[in-house]
Amino acid sequence: MRQILAFLLLCSLSSVSADPLPSWQEGPAKRAIVAFVAQVTQAGGADFVPPAQRIAVFDNDGTLWVEQPVYTQLAFVLERLKTLAPEHPEWKSEQPFKAALAGDMPTLGEAGMGGLMQLLMATHAGMTTDEFAAIAANWIDTARHPRFQRPYTTLVYQPMLELLEFLRSSGFEVYIVSGGGADFLRPWAERVYGVPPERIVGSQIAQRFELRDGRPVLVREAKIAFVDDKEGKPVGIQRHIGRRPILAFGNSDGDLQMLQWTTGAPGRRLGLVLHHDDGTREYAYDRDSHFGRLDKALDLAPANGWVLVSMKNDWSQVFPPLADDGQ
Amino acid sequence: MRQILAFLLLCSLSSVSADPLPSWQEGPAKRAIVAFVAQVTQAGGADFVPPAQRIAVFDNDGTLWVEQPVYTQLAFVLERLKTLAPEHPEWKSEQPFKAALAGDMPTLGEAGMGGLMQLLMATHAGMTTDEFAAIAANWIDTARHPRFQRPYTTLVYQPMLELLEFLRSSGFEVYIVSGGGADFLRPWAERVYGVPPERIVGSQIAQRFELRDGRPVLVREAKIAFVDDKEGKPVGIQRHIGRRPILAFGNSDGDLQMLQWTTGAPGRRLGLVLHHDDGTREYAYDRDSHFGRLDKALDLAPANGWVLVSMKNDWSQVFPPLADDGQ
Repeated sequence: MRQILAFLLLCSLSSVSADPLPSWQEGPAKRAIVAFVAQVTQAGGADFVPPAQRIAVFDNDGTLWVEQPVYTQLAFVLERLKTLAPEHPEWKSEQPFKAALAGDMPTLGEAGMGGLMQLLMATHAGMTTDEFAAIAANWIDTARHPRFQRPYTTLVYQPMLELLEFLRSSGFEVYIVSGGGADFLRPWAERVYGVPPERIVGSQIAQRFELRDGRPVLVREAKIAFVDDKEGKPVGIQRHIGRRPILAFGNSDGDLQMLQWTTGAPGRRLGLVLHHDDGTREYAYDRDSHFGRLDKALDLAPANGWVLVSMKNDWSQVFPPLADDGQ
Repeated sequence: MRQILAFLLLCSLSSVSADPLPSWQEGPAKRAIVAFVAQVTQAGGADFVPPAQRIAVFDNDGTLWVEQPVYTQLAFVLERLKTLAPEHPEWKSEQPFKAALAGDMPTLGEAGMGGLMQLLMATHAGMTTDEFAAIAANWIDTARHPRFQRPYTTLVYQPMLELLEFLRSSGFEVYIVSGGGADFLRPWAERVYGVPPERIVGSQIAQRFELRDGRPVLVREAKIAFVDDKEGKPVGIQRHIGRRPILAFGNSDGDLQMLQWTTGAPGRRLGLVLHHDDGTREYAYDRDSHFGRLDKALDLAPANGWVLVSMKNDWSQVFPPLADDGQ
């Protein structure tokens, strides 16, 4: 009987002290996160924040999942162009389509932002919102990352999945605030991250309402309506959420203004920056990278009290274990 | 003892059958609402909808609160112009400001949408988001409706407050989708309607992020970023929520496309249109009104199965009772 009681007591203690962040190494980053959550959730404490105001915002590319060797949405664009090429014989000679189809990255780079926009519009516009959601969902289910040969949705970071869940279970509203397209993330973000469509803030293409044979549709137009990057991120947050976050997590200069907006206000705030310094398990890059360049935000982190998270040292595991079916 | 048991039984029955919509008269509109909620929430039923997909969208002006004799936000604009006039001596001679300050509605009408935009920009732009929120909150606390001499926030419809709460307690996510400015509603909508800032979809002014003396601010710019009215409402819903609603409630042609978008899809859906036919307790208007014109949507309601709600016949009470302090 005494043994049973001792066992029950042990179970109960272990459940109380269960680590919500098992893939995070003990260290300053994990301590900062755990302390912050304890402070803002402690009823009656000096830093208590009511649940409705516990807004946490996360960048996506390079913060929640891999963004190398290219942003996943760009991989989608390039593969989508190949799918559509038979309907567009003119792409064989027209730039930037020719370069994109040939994987000629230097020429594509010369085409600049204007060229990328042409590719984006050719692949993301001209269909209804339902049609695009189906195309994006189908692609994400079948595409494989060139290095890891796994679906992109399995190249999300296990420590970040744990953090999202830890925050939600601590009464936070968790939002993704991505430079990528909101409608590219929404078809799968709830399944993969537990973040529902209404909590995805992202770049937006223009849309037009119309009746087709009496059936209402929203048609995606070849025009950018909103760019949710850099200075756009605080604007996107204000437009969509209408409250100022108390926690922001990013990994690049594209997240700089979101970090400033979140932490540059009175009250307890937490800014976090993921540093990709693990070329063995993932990638090592910062100031010189074409995708996810981390330069200014790296310089400004210490003075702003932003916590640098080292992938190499702070994470005991990078990706979730693969299920047997490879999904 | 038997009497006590009978009393307890009565209490228990009364609590089970408590009417969630006490200000709604028994009739077809109330029956349609109650039946719809029962059907989509019945686990295992043919029309069951999981809670995460129970999205309900409500227009604001004329659906949740009074929109006569002018939209409340326009009343705010006109009073705000008077407050700002001493700083703008040129308004004494420049149109449309002169007409607005004199209450000269015919001249203001001639100035058209362009003129209204000038007034909007003069009162809604050029300050930070925090400053505008404070101005709007202060005005709504002190302004009085010209006919009812009550704060505008007490001229919300009691039956609609009951419906919002009934839907929330039935697992719905309730959004306001307003032609008015999201940032004009957000400072008070949670207190008055129980709808938090992140569930307000509305028209948007452009915003610019900047650092002022190292402090991050969002500055409201004199440029419209998004008009959440008519064809814009389904677009606003898709951009913000990313899911298709299953219930929409409006009162004017500005809500027509939102009703079409919500009900024009497979599965159980409910569209509702409030008909202002009660000149005694509120206002009677439809096809010929400058504000909240209900014409096309009235014609299209029967064929689409939208439920017409008569303020006169379906509501036993229009406004909530006033507390002693007049708030």
